[in-house]
Amino acid sequence: MNGAESLVHTLLGAGVEVCFANPGTSEMHFVAALDRIPGMRCVLGLQENVVTGMADGYFRMSGKPAATLLHCGPGLANGLANLHNARRARSGMVNCVGDQATYHRPLDAQLTADTEGWAHGVSAWVRTSARAADVARDAAVAVQAARTSPGGIATLILPSDTCWDEAPDGPAPALPVPPAPEADPLAIRNAARALRERSDVLILLGGLALRAEPQALAWRIAQATGAKVMAEMSNGRVERGRGRLALERVPYPVDLAVEALKPYTTIILVNAKAPVGFFAYPGKPSRHHREDADILPLTRYEADPVQALAALAAELGAPEAAIPDPGPRPEIARGAPTPEGLARTLAALMPDHAVVADESVSFGRGFFKETHAAPPHDWLQITGGAIGCGIPLATGAAVGAGGRRVVNLQADGSGMYTLQGLWTQAREKLPVTTVVLSNRQYAILLGEYRGVGANPGRTAMDMLDLGNPDLDWVKLANGMGVEAAKTATLEGCADLMRQSFAQDGPFLIELEI
Amino acid sequence: MNGAESLVHTLLGAGVEVCFANPGTSEMHFVAALDRIPGMRCVLGLQENVVTGMADGYFRMSGKPAATLLHCGPGLANGLANLHNARRARSGMVNCVGDQATYHRPLDAQLTADTEGWAHGVSAWVRTSARAADVARDAAVAVQAARTSPGGIATLILPSDTCWDEAPDGPAPALPVPPAPEADPLAIRNAARALRERSDVLILLGGLALRAEPQALAWRIAQATGAKVMAEMSNGRVERGRGRLALERVPYPVDLAVEALKPYTTIILVNAKAPVGFFAYPGKPSRHHREDADILPLTRYEADPVQALAALAAELGAPEAAIPDPGPRPEIARGAPTPEGLARTLAALMPDHAVVADESVSFGRGFFKETHAAPPHDWLQITGGAIGCGIPLATGAAVGAGGRRVVNLQADGSGMYTLQGLWTQAREKLPVTTVVLSNRQYAILLGEYRGVGANPGRTAMDMLDLGNPDLDWVKLANGMGVEAAKTATLEGCADLMRQSFAQDGPFLIELEI
Repeated sequence: MNGAESLVHTLLGAGVEVCFANPGTSEMHFVAALDRIPGMRCVLGLQENVVTGMADGYFRMSGKPAATLLHCGPGLANGLANLHNARRARSGMVNCVGDQATYHRPLDAQLTADTEGWAHGVSAWVRTSARAADVARDAAVAVQAARTSPGGIATLILPSDTCWDEAPDGPAPALPVPPAPEADPLAIRNAARALRERSDVLILLGGLALRAEPQALAWRIAQATGAKVMAEMSNGRVERGRGRLALERVPYPVDLAVEALKPYTTIILVNAKAPVGFFAYPGKPSRHHREDADILPLTRYEADPVQALAALAAELGAPEAAIPDPGPRPEIARGAPTPEGLARTLAALMPDHAVVADESVSFGRGFFKETHAAPPHDWLQITGGAIGCGIPLATGAAVGAGGRRVVNLQADGSGMYTLQGLWTQAREKLPVTTVVLSNRQYAILLGEYRGVGANPGRTAMDMLDLGNPDLDWVKLANGMGVEAAKTATLEGCADLMRQSFAQDGPFLIELEI
Repeated sequence: MNGAESLVHTLLGAGVEVCFANPGTSEMHFVAALDRIPGMRCVLGLQENVVTGMADGYFRMSGKPAATLLHCGPGLANGLANLHNARRARSGMVNCVGDQATYHRPLDAQLTADTEGWAHGVSAWVRTSARAADVARDAAVAVQAARTSPGGIATLILPSDTCWDEAPDGPAPALPVPPAPEADPLAIRNAARALRERSDVLILLGGLALRAEPQALAWRIAQATGAKVMAEMSNGRVERGRGRLALERVPYPVDLAVEALKPYTTIILVNAKAPVGFFAYPGKPSRHHREDADILPLTRYEADPVQALAALAAELGAPEAAIPDPGPRPEIARGAPTPEGLARTLAALMPDHAVVADESVSFGRGFFKETHAAPPHDWLQITGGAIGCGIPLATGAAVGAGGRRVVNLQADGSGMYTLQGLWTQAREKLPVTTVVLSNRQYAILLGEYRGVGANPGRTAMDMLDLGNPDLDWVKLANGMGVEAAKTATLEGCADLMRQSFAQDGPFLIELEI
């Protein structure tokens, strides 16, 4: 057995079932091993940022780390932006990055690059295997790191000779995964005291606390104490819709965020951090809560929020509390697209247990409010601000969500970053409906530019406007084997959504806004 | 004047005329400064690897560094692969990377990343400006680094407050650029002695030594001494065609490279390094020259090869020597596409002083031999092996080459990495003819896979085959505003080339091979 075969056996033995891949020459022994050893589903992406974004989406929906297969330093580099988003979503995965043979690296051949250096900024764990005999054990540790709560990016760099040389010990057994830590009893008592004594407490949920069960516990606590509950601004996965809380997020614009947080002198953090601005702006605060607010961390991001919130509810003697009814399901909207109308149309039509992959950027900031009364669904956001996340995230989520329909709300400028992911949707016949919000500009930047205090002139517009020429998303999708259609009205969008939701496989709707 | 304005004035004053851009929020003050201060041509790319690849192509043709404008760490990360290629091509550019405000960075907001860490692996020079008053001086040093022979990647990271704060000293003057170093007289004498005493000497040219003038000097020396002249495997820019040497490159496959270098017991390196394999293979040598070969460096890559070769020719008393006639210009070929037929067709039709941007990968290895008798032209290769270089390189070369026709020979798998560059070609109406070599597979990898000793099974083909679904490059190009057509014959390709060469603007030919 060679090192590559020991790697594949070890990954399979540790429960890694899917490999998102864009291999190159130095990974051919790994590809050959995957070919010889049955059990791994291999999904090709045509650019590495698609590959890493798919692994992120897969983890968010399945809770299981996938492997990725990347080619040398530049292949890893191409995938860094979505690894950055995955790191912010606290997703787990095992990146297997091929590299020059150990004895070839000092010769500085063309593809030789700082593979380890690039990996560190996004990885919880990085190792370069030194010899074939180490690969299996290194892989077992990588999977352990990827599975450690809430999930971690493990990057295993494999010089090509560690793949083709003999691995005398064969595969390594899976290593135990440590349980998520429990909340500090003192943190629970502090939170309980604040909730008992104060009327202006915010319970801020993030990460794993945005699943249905911790939401229900937070609601019990809020009902018993008068506290409010809110979600962080950017979240990897929120369980929402009927039967879940009608949670609002901390707003993106500084002024709105400050306004939303002004009532609270106490913020209890549950797998969340104290709210800060996405960016700084001259003369505006970087921290968005009140300066005098007490910040009380109940749990860090790696903790089990169900255990912590249950303990807090018990400490408070908070009785069971029914999740409020969100009101009637919205009806589809008509006419020219508006954010509210599109959100209501989506809420009216989405299948039960749909998954929404949201990279709608500026157009989508109001989508949450209008979709509380939709059927139960999951909402995945861009978490690290590195645009080009939506299409790969939707693709990987479809692989990980066992046939559930995925709706990708996709800004056009961001979509162009990783449009190659559409091809994988066609190849794998994935149930993804992409709604491209086609405004032919970097709308968020035009807003920011005006915030700088000027109207854009010709040179600025040359960098902010995506018209001239207009992108034709129907042709782009068709060119990659994805059926597509264009519409400029919400009723047209509704018809196309119905059509897409009723059939298998991917479909793209270009919605001119 | 704010820091951003001091930056733009400094760049313009130092002769930077073009900015390839994909800005974000943290760069809005830079965009506003570019808008207010006339003089910079701003060219938008829809993904950062397009942006950095364009800057590479621009430098290769113009010899001048462009600025790039990139958004935070993830924006830089998206452009790293083509920065890696640019580094290997020894291209100069000034990357301006926006980042979080100095006081906001410690809060670890969503987009905060290891921007400096990612920059180091590809940059000759990296600096993060600490305050607005430093920006102009830092920018002047960055341009100096970018212009220092043969060219360097300078990365200037600009926290957003250094752009919006007041810069009391205004712009900084351009700094002097050190001249390219002259060759060591001892190296010249050593090379001359070897050339006088031995009959099996190879003069290996790389980098700046592949322009017409050093080629002619190398030819004089070869004619006087019986030495042979060859080019490195991967070259940023070779001046070729009628009036230039019919240079062959060191071959890519190990066995062919070893065979080609076997005759030489002495290799004189002119801006080149001793040949090593692109990758290592089990049981094959990493260095491709004879083990007993004497490696004599005449010049390092930063030196002036004209000075060095002229001194060597003088030392040898080598008389003037006419560049050999390459024979009659090839005629167009017909029928099913072959590498030789396509190369002859291109040689038959290319306009004088065309620029060829070659990312043909496996199909294109024989293109050189068939194009020696074409009119004078420049040939740009992928230099770092990071695929996805061709379309951006062609785009930037067209910006830098003053209206000359650029022909991009583009493998389909690699083209999909950065297809977004086609949109910039349409927007800027650039004279680029893209010939996509559509084989619907990662052909180079299929070859390498068979080298591993096996025929690919289903799982391997899932990662090596690009069919299912087939990419339609005509639709993809049309979707980005580029006119396009498909053909499966060389005469069809010739007709489309003629049509494209006769008109302004971009055109894409999908050649089914």
